Amino acid sequence: MPRINDNYLKLTAGYLFPEISRRVTRFCAANPDADVIRLGIGDVTEALPAAMTEAMHQAIDELSIRESFRGYGPEQGYAFLREVIAEQRYRAGGVDVSPDEIFISDGSKCDTGNILDIFGPDNVVAVTDPVYPVYVDTNVMAGRTGPVDDAGRYPGLVYIPVTAENDFVPAIPEEHVDLIYLCYPNNPTGTVATRETLQRWVDYAKREQAILFFDAAYEAYISEPEIPHSIYEIEGARDVAIEFRSFSKNAGFTGVRCALTVVPKQLTGQTRSGESVDIHSLWNRRQSTKFNGVCYVVQRAAEAACLPEGQRQIGELIDFYLTNARLLREGLQATGISVYGGVNAPYVWLKTPGGISSWGFFDQLLETAHLVGTPGSGFGASGEGYFRLSAFSSRENIAEAVDRFQRVIS
Amino acid sequence: MPRINDNYLKLTAGYLFPEISRRVTRFCAANPDADVIRLGIGDVTEALPAAMTEAMHQAIDELSIRESFRGYGPEQGYAFLREVIAEQRYRAGGVDVSPDEIFISDGSKCDTGNILDIFGPDNVVAVTDPVYPVYVDTNVMAGRTGPVDDAGRYPGLVYIPVTAENDFVPAIPEEHVDLIYLCYPNNPTGTVATRETLQRWVDYAKREQAILFFDAAYEAYISEPEIPHSIYEIEGARDVAIEFRSFSKNAGFTGVRCALTVVPKQLTGQTRSGESVDIHSLWNRRQSTKFNGVCYVVQRAAEAACLPEGQRQIGELIDFYLTNARLLREGLQATGISVYGGVNAPYVWLKTPGGISSWGFFDQLLETAHLVGTPGSGFGASGEGYFRLSAFSSRENIAEAVDRFQRVIS
Repeated sequence: MPRINDNYLKLTAGYLFPEISRRVTRFCAANPDADVIRLGIGDVTEALPAAMTEAMHQAIDELSIRESFRGYGPEQGYAFLREVIAEQRYRAGGVDVSPDEIFISDGSKCDTGNILDIFGPDNVVAVTDPVYPVYVDTNVMAGRTGPVDDAGRYPGLVYIPVTAENDFVPAIPEEHVDLIYLCYPNNPTGTVATRETLQRWVDYAKREQAILFFDAAYEAYISEPEIPHSIYEIEGARDVAIEFRSFSKNAGFTGVRCALTVVPKQLTGQTRSGESVDIHSLWNRRQSTKFNGVCYVVQRAAEAACLPEGQRQIGELIDFYLTNARLLREGLQATGISVYGGVNAPYVWLKTPGGISSWGFFDQLLETAHLVGTPGSGFGASGEGYFRLSAFSSRENIAEAVDRFQRVIS
Repeated sequence: MPRINDNYLKLTAGYLFPEISRRVTRFCAANPDADVIRLGIGDVTEALPAAMTEAMHQAIDELSIRESFRGYGPEQGYAFLREVIAEQRYRAGGVDVSPDEIFISDGSKCDTGNILDIFGPDNVVAVTDPVYPVYVDTNVMAGRTGPVDDAGRYPGLVYIPVTAENDFVPAIPEEHVDLIYLCYPNNPTGTVATRETLQRWVDYAKREQAILFFDAAYEAYISEPEIPHSIYEIEGARDVAIEFRSFSKNAGFTGVRCALTVVPKQLTGQTRSGESVDIHSLWNRRQSTKFNGVCYVVQRAAEAACLPEGQRQIGELIDFYLTNARLLREGLQATGISVYGGVNAPYVWLKTPGGISSWGFFDQLLETAHLVGTPGSGFGASGEGYFRLSAFSSRENIAEAVDRFQRVIS
């Protein structure tokens, strides 16, 4: 009988969001009249802006005529999209990224998982804690860990706590690590990294010859001018960092699917025999062999998202969600609890009141306020005692959620 | 420095289609007035039919309104699409597949590569030869082979020759293998498998407790009524087979991107300690963790492709390409060379005249007839001495290609 990949059996059975969904479904079945407000999953709620839908309609019209029909596109993405991203999203901000360093894909979740394909099994991998679960789970699947321990940690990974105790600034590891995931603005905490913090990480990576996986899926939410949007704003980062970006949370593409990964040409890894190999070629080979490119219609929408009118419309969306985040943050702070994030990110991260556990608070909030959030412990052991609320909702829901929260907590 | 996946270095540098592209580019640069006809890559050429484009326009209109906007969809695909596929593409033909056994994805290339994630490194893998290169390359990347030999074969894989000598019927292996790729209608040979041949494979798989990866990307091209469209038409196949299907070559989705993989619930694999694990759960976990679902707009187009009007329009496209294939086949046969395929597939597979090598014939055809095809040796050692021509082109190009071929060969 074929042998399965045994590493899959190490994965904890109850993945966070399905478990939330189970509890909410059970509650709703028992309380059919409850008006449940869901601020759990980080999914956009507002309509796709006109610049993008117009570009999609036009692209479909092209495909409906033989003369302008397009079949397979380049696996790396169309030049028109790679060029507009390099120009408008990087070079216009003074950041040096060339079009052929940009790989278009159907999602950052896919890319942050698939990037592991090109690295050997024996690298030491570090994640911040709490963390986006996909970084951890894909390393478990790839066999870089032992079975999970009682706290929810996998031996073999290096966990770097980010909590209120260290002001959500991950400490530079004292040991050597090879691959490090950083996500800024951070999911789940909603906090950001200053230029100085990022410079320390780049310096560490250069010193240790490590590679940073920099997930900037939420960069559009940065409202404070001194916070870097790209790791490549940091001196030396092109030698040590891969950057992941997405159209999901800015242009509203969670259901449309487009993202990009930047792999600088000078980034290198090492073979078993000690030779240096460029990572760009490996990723190109991986994508050419195991990926077929993104839907042409979607790439035209992504192009529109990078152009001035698209950017203006996206700006309105971001302002809307950030206002939600501010209302949430201020409303929660008024109850006296500790609240983080929500300034440069669509997430508010709060300390559960009275030291109650993350899941305990989840149940309490669901039962007494009919509010759904995400238990911090679902993002890692150091997330225990914290809770995430998402600003992706209607203004009415946010106002009502704040009201209910205040009634239950104060 | 991070260690790379050394298996990537085993891949032969000149992947088939880039090498073709290089030679054609060089020829065109030297002969700027040559009217080159490209029957190399298997990419559709005709416009996307109206049923699909109308469904896409409508889906975009839904996304442009807050009330009908959709963000993240299920990673496995929307129920509306899984249900219509189960009903219209399987059950209507008497084949037992349930909606929750169907996983929607963005391509069969991705799925046939990614499926390896859930299997251990120590399985014995068999491929037919010649073969779609992705099956081989993804196993090389996963570390199941040694470095390539002079004939282009990777030690560690079991190659099953399919040539004119055995009427393109792959012999059942005498040894034990765990995973076997079968592609019918076949790319590159254009040949098909009878019910009896497939039954022998299913029986072998049951006896050896192996799993068949059945790639049916070209099933819509089957014109002879006795040829099975799905492996699940074969008794016992649900216990041993995963089936891959695609909307690329029937609905014209090579640039739109939608495919599906069927994993029957009863399919099992084995852990290191000998326990049985169901493959469906593993694939579900893989897709939930490393994939984000297919664009909503595309899923609506795929739904339309399964409904009667979409099927009628697709039928016209298939008829068009199959007539091209017939004209190619008959035109080539008239020169006296041996021609295979082209009846139930959009590919014609021919024996190179006078025993010339595949690449020798490629160069000869390009230089003397300004015709581009695909050298059979690019698909594997047993493809040497063969050549593939694709029927994906305009009627005028096909007629002109036949004319030129006849002038050069006869």
